[in-house]
Amino acid sequence: MSAPDSVRVAVVGATGYTGAELLRLLTGHPHVRVSCVTSRTRCGESVSDLFPGLRGHMDDVLEAPDAARLSRCDLVFFATPNATAMRLVPALLDAGTRVVDLSADFRLRDARQWEAWYGCKHACPDLLAEAVYGLPELHRSAIRTARLVANPGCYPTAVQIGFIPLLENRVVDASRLIADAKSGASGAGRQAALATQLCEASENIFAYAVSGHRHLPEIVQGLESVCDDVLGLVFVPHLVPMIRGIHATLYATLHDTSVDIQALYEERYGAEPFVDVLAPGAHPETRNVRGANVCQLAWHRPADGDTLVVLVVEDNLVKGAAGQAVQNMNIMLGYDERAGLMQPAMVP
Amino acid sequence: MSAPDSVRVAVVGATGYTGAELLRLLTGHPHVRVSCVTSRTRCGESVSDLFPGLRGHMDDVLEAPDAARLSRCDLVFFATPNATAMRLVPALLDAGTRVVDLSADFRLRDARQWEAWYGCKHACPDLLAEAVYGLPELHRSAIRTARLVANPGCYPTAVQIGFIPLLENRVVDASRLIADAKSGASGAGRQAALATQLCEASENIFAYAVSGHRHLPEIVQGLESVCDDVLGLVFVPHLVPMIRGIHATLYATLHDTSVDIQALYEERYGAEPFVDVLAPGAHPETRNVRGANVCQLAWHRPADGDTLVVLVVEDNLVKGAAGQAVQNMNIMLGYDERAGLMQPAMVP
Amino acid sequence: MSAPDSVRVAVVGATGYTGAELLRLLTGHPHVRVSCVTSRTRCGESVSDLFPGLRGHMDDVLEAPDAARLSRCDLVFFATPNATAMRLVPALLDAGTRVVDLSADFRLRDARQWEAWYGCKHACPDLLAEAVYGLPELHRSAIRTARLVANPGCYPTAVQIGFIPLLENRVVDASRLIADAKSGASGAGRQAALATQLCEASENIFAYAVSGHRHLPEIVQGLESVCDDVLGLVFVPHLVPMIRGIHATLYATLHDTSVDIQALYEERYGAEPFVDVLAPGAHPETRNVRGANVCQLAWHRPADGDTLVVLVVEDNLVKGAAGQAVQNMNIMLGYDERAGLMQPAMVP
Amino acid sequence: MSAPDSVRVAVVGATGYTGAELLRLLTGHPHVRVSCVTSRTRCGESVSDLFPGLRGHMDDVLEAPDAARLSRCDLVFFATPNATAMRLVPALLDAGTRVVDLSADFRLRDARQWEAWYGCKHACPDLLAEAVYGLPELHRSAIRTARLVANPGCYPTAVQIGFIPLLENRVVDASRLIADAKSGASGAGRQAALATQLCEASENIFAYAVSGHRHLPEIVQGLESVCDDVLGLVFVPHLVPMIRGIHATLYATLHDTSVDIQALYEERYGAEPFVDVLAPGAHPETRNVRGANVCQLAWHRPADGDTLVVLVVEDNLVKGAAGQAVQNMNIMLGYDERAGLMQPAMVP
Repeated sequence: MSAPDSVRVAVVGATGYTGAELLRLLTGHPHVRVSCVTSRTRCGESVSDLFPGLRGHMDDVLEAPDAARLSRCDLVFFATPNATAMRLVPALLDAGTRVVDLSADFRLRDARQWEAWYGCKHACPDLLAEAVYGLPELHRSAIRTARLVANPGCYPTAVQIGFIPLLENRVVDASRLIADAKSGASGAGRQAALATQLCEASENIFAYAVSGHRHLPEIVQGLESVCDDVLGLVFVPHLVPMIRGIHATLYATLHDTSVDIQALYEERYGAEPFVDVLAPGAHPETRNVRGANVCQLAWHRPADGDTLVVLVVEDNLVKGAAGQAVQNMNIMLGYDERAGLMQPAMVP
Repeated sequence: MSAPDSVRVAVVGATGYTGAELLRLLTGHPHVRVSCVTSRTRCGESVSDLFPGLRGHMDDVLEAPDAARLSRCDLVFFATPNATAMRLVPALLDAGTRVVDLSADFRLRDARQWEAWYGCKHACPDLLAEAVYGLPELHRSAIRTARLVANPGCYPTAVQIGFIPLLENRVVDASRLIADAKSGASGAGRQAALATQLCEASENIFAYAVSGHRHLPEIVQGLESVCDDVLGLVFVPHLVPMIRGIHATLYATLHDTSVDIQALYEERYGAEPFVDVLAPGAHPETRNVRGANVCQLAWHRPADGDTLVVLVVEDNLVKGAAGQAVQNMNIMLGYDERAGLMQPAMVP
Repeated sequence: MSAPDSVRVAVVGATGYTGAELLRLLTGHPHVRVSCVTSRTRCGESVSDLFPGLRGHMDDVLEAPDAARLSRCDLVFFATPNATAMRLVPALLDAGTRVVDLSADFRLRDARQWEAWYGCKHACPDLLAEAVYGLPELHRSAIRTARLVANPGCYPTAVQIGFIPLLENRVVDASRLIADAKSGASGAGRQAALATQLCEASENIFAYAVSGHRHLPEIVQGLESVCDDVLGLVFVPHLVPMIRGIHATLYATLHDTSVDIQALYEERYGAEPFVDVLAPGAHPETRNVRGANVCQLAWHRPADGDTLVVLVVEDNLVKGAAGQAVQNMNIMLGYDERAGLMQPAMVP
Repeated sequence: MSAPDSVRVAVVGATGYTGAELLRLLTGHPHVRVSCVTSRTRCGESVSDLFPGLRGHMDDVLEAPDAARLSRCDLVFFATPNATAMRLVPALLDAGTRVVDLSADFRLRDARQWEAWYGCKHACPDLLAEAVYGLPELHRSAIRTARLVANPGCYPTAVQIGFIPLLENRVVDASRLIADAKSGASGAGRQAALATQLCEASENIFAYAVSGHRHLPEIVQGLESVCDDVLGLVFVPHLVPMIRGIHATLYATLHDTSVDIQALYEERYGAEPFVDVLAPGAHPETRNVRGANVCQLAWHRPADGDTLVVLVVEDNLVKGAAGQAVQNMNIMLGYDERAGLMQPAMVP
């Protein structure tokens, strides 16, 4: 069965950064027609009034989200706040519409865990088992036929990409992992908050949520699935004064320092279109993936010791959100996985 | 005569920001094959070692510039420092290769004026009369057949786009124009300079070259050509702590306050693919054209007085440099003027 | 009568940027004891919980504003939002407490004009005539004995300092002045707003309120008072991606180009402790006054024409707000005008 | 013996960021007269031409460094590039002048190690044993009488302050320490380098020197001295797009999770004027120490596990360089340790 020449998609919740990024990427996709863009708060306004950078590319009027109208699309993206998609998704699936959810609603398989971290009752816990976690490097074949894809969080994408080859191959101690992650402010979403005002967040760096961040159970769930082991992970996120980019600095203890780490990564990711293994000893920079759907990574073994340091960078809005969502859509619909995702990074 | 399916182009001087931006844009151009990328200082290295953001998109090895080799291309872009292109261009033109020069070498028609501002002897002053000034909004038909296009400077593009309709229609006093312009740091080029270190240039704004900037004669030459009048222009550039973007705030005195300014701009630019006239009273933002080959502009008449304020934004590396160069190439080679230039702005 | 060894002051509205800056400066003042710090929204919390940069310097608990308690201070600073001070000030003055108001409540002498720009009824219009406009360079002697000082706005300070010598000496055309001003984001205050989020405001520049900004009537009132003429001023503010700093680029037309501008400025400001006239042709930078209570300025006459360009920089939170408030307090209380204000700029 | 009312000091190498910061701090010191400021490259210029932020505070003319002239000062600060101070220091000590060296010349006790990391022969290896490492929290009493103080590096200050109480009390495994550190760009010094251009370093984060950074042996030497054990430390520095500030995120494994960490830190640092232990669970921010001579720190124990996370912030130019140098001088000369160092942080 070949992919259709063109599909109709909807973007629900287009007023945030992941929604806007999705629109930016979809305007350049050769097979996609965005036929419906919704926003509860801004409906009636045009997309390009809200985002003047889209003038001439996407001038649709924002609609209120409506299940009947959405279900006429082939695929619906949710770029909504958490606890929103779960209210609309069941109806869409029933109508035969496929869904990529960029929020956290379907990322955890355990409803009780989800409810503990997200602070409310899940509206359709039965779908948690069906939803496929949309990390193509891990679940590509399941994504292909999924009705519902839970698009990974930004931190979890970078951290998992970095640890997967080590855990799959059982070369590190799974019980003592550290992920020291640094993110630009767009990870906090497009909202009027004091902490991410330019005057508060620029010329400043700090750690946050050290006692526990919502992305922690998502990372643990993913990594435990590849190593069949109980994971011990300390995850410390930091806010960095920049707009886009995540830099994950990963620390793990090698069981055996003679293992060929470079080969491990190259074998694991050599065929992956969007994971780029740099030369050993390289220092990846977030700007080199700015706007691009790519993770770049490199590893170090300081002083030839048994601590392995893995450096992973991504654009949190692209490979960490909207780009990965388009990648998932391409897989689901049978397109070239790279369709619409081949722009190089914007440097400088 | 129809445009060829594909052409071979070269980029001379690929290690600067305009060169890198050109490569970024050309990797997505449907009809272009970059067959030669040169750098005198970094030859032998791969483009993607220098710019890891291009890995997988452009992995060519940098060559030393060589006239014979370059002349086998259909078109050569020069993204070299000033006073470099002029030494190679004559040989290329003789060989039948067309040229788009992004440096300042062919922007002024008067050799003595050029030599006064650029501080050295011009190597081929005879070509100054032939070179077409590559502002498509002004010289589209001449660009079509030009052998040599002088791509405009970043400030001159924004300032001229803003003033042209006013001067063509003689609605303002040409002898008392003010252009207060603000630029991101990439306008200063990719070089190790103290003044543009992050620690010197961030959290800071200042004017520079108030007594006279090289872009002044270029602007005056262009604007005098549309109004057949002697121009009086005060041009004050400022350095703003950001990477990309120019904001030109233009001031002019209206002869008659009853003229319909909005109609003037819309008529002049309605058919232009890359000039976007916003609603009256809008405030264009540089981020809305970040990475895009567009000028957005709007005008104001404070307190209904006779001072007209025109706000023009562009990405200095795109519509102010590499994007405009591709636009010129498209015109020269008969392609859709928008080919390779349809990515929307990257926001945020 | 000599100044008291020590005075008790209060800061009303300490949770904003001007309030916090006032506390920072007052902790280093040799004669001031801050005996009361208020905040309606955060009362009960300690100042240093709100601003951990003040830990060890100012650990007072924030109180609810209370007129009786405030009136026990020698002087009260209001760093409140507009339309707040005017409700408390009359009671304080009646109690014999002197006031420096950093908000806009008492800056305009005409109540109707104030109400038109600030959108509400003035609570004590009779005090507008008594309030002294706190620009020491203009009203030092009146400030000395004032009960109520209206501390100038940030833009008005820079713009007036730049134009005053020109207008007092009638060397420029008062009917055609332009002030193109650029401000860091702290000028917008400490509040959760979308437009000043790091992701919206960094890597971006734009003009705003071009049709009319609240600081316009304040500037016009001040400048008309020094030239006894009707002023024509176009004022265009811009938001620049930095925290602190205002750069005003002023344009005026000289009646006579032979006048000695440098002498004019040096004579006018030679004895001023906080106006620093740079050498002719200099380009002041906002960072060079970061954290300091100083305006630095320089002038240019491009192409020896009749347009004079004056460049003025200040820290909007210091000479443009809290520093000037302390300067006014020093004058009112008979202290050395420079007391507590002698820290040099923080560079880089 | 009481401290003299006033001393004469010199600053050698005033054109860098630590030199400029030293001058900024010394202008406010009650007992110091800066009687000589030198620069080999800019001698003859005035300090305030180089740093216009110092106009009116420090207008001395830069001199060429001269041992005879310097030896007439009571104390000389070296803010020179590495391998410079060591050529002048012996003569000054012989003349009875005391020295605080902000460069790395006297930080390591082992000359061979120094030569390996700094790539040249040490000019006076005999002085390495005498030099006192100027971390007052560790060596206060030795500093008091030292002739020569080696002022610590910026990273080493933050990392050691964080680890010292843990190692002194032997509550963590000294063989598996991790220091993930993030620094603003001023740590790289004031020099024209490509990597720290605004266009390269802003909107970007990356790790560097992961295989080995010069500050590693300095940290190890210091920490081994407090625990009499062989240290295993992985140190990963990152460049963050801001001017000032270091955030060290430290990871250690607790031997026993029941130990009272907060008490440990409060007991160790309760009497320290410049180490500020925040409440458990706090997240220190670099901006809260911007311009101030303070380390703020807090600790976390994620998921109540045995990994302790300690967050330490400092201003790399103050407590990480010039402020600590002034603190050392105060101790050496018998002044109040806080003299000249009591400005609160500049926020925002």
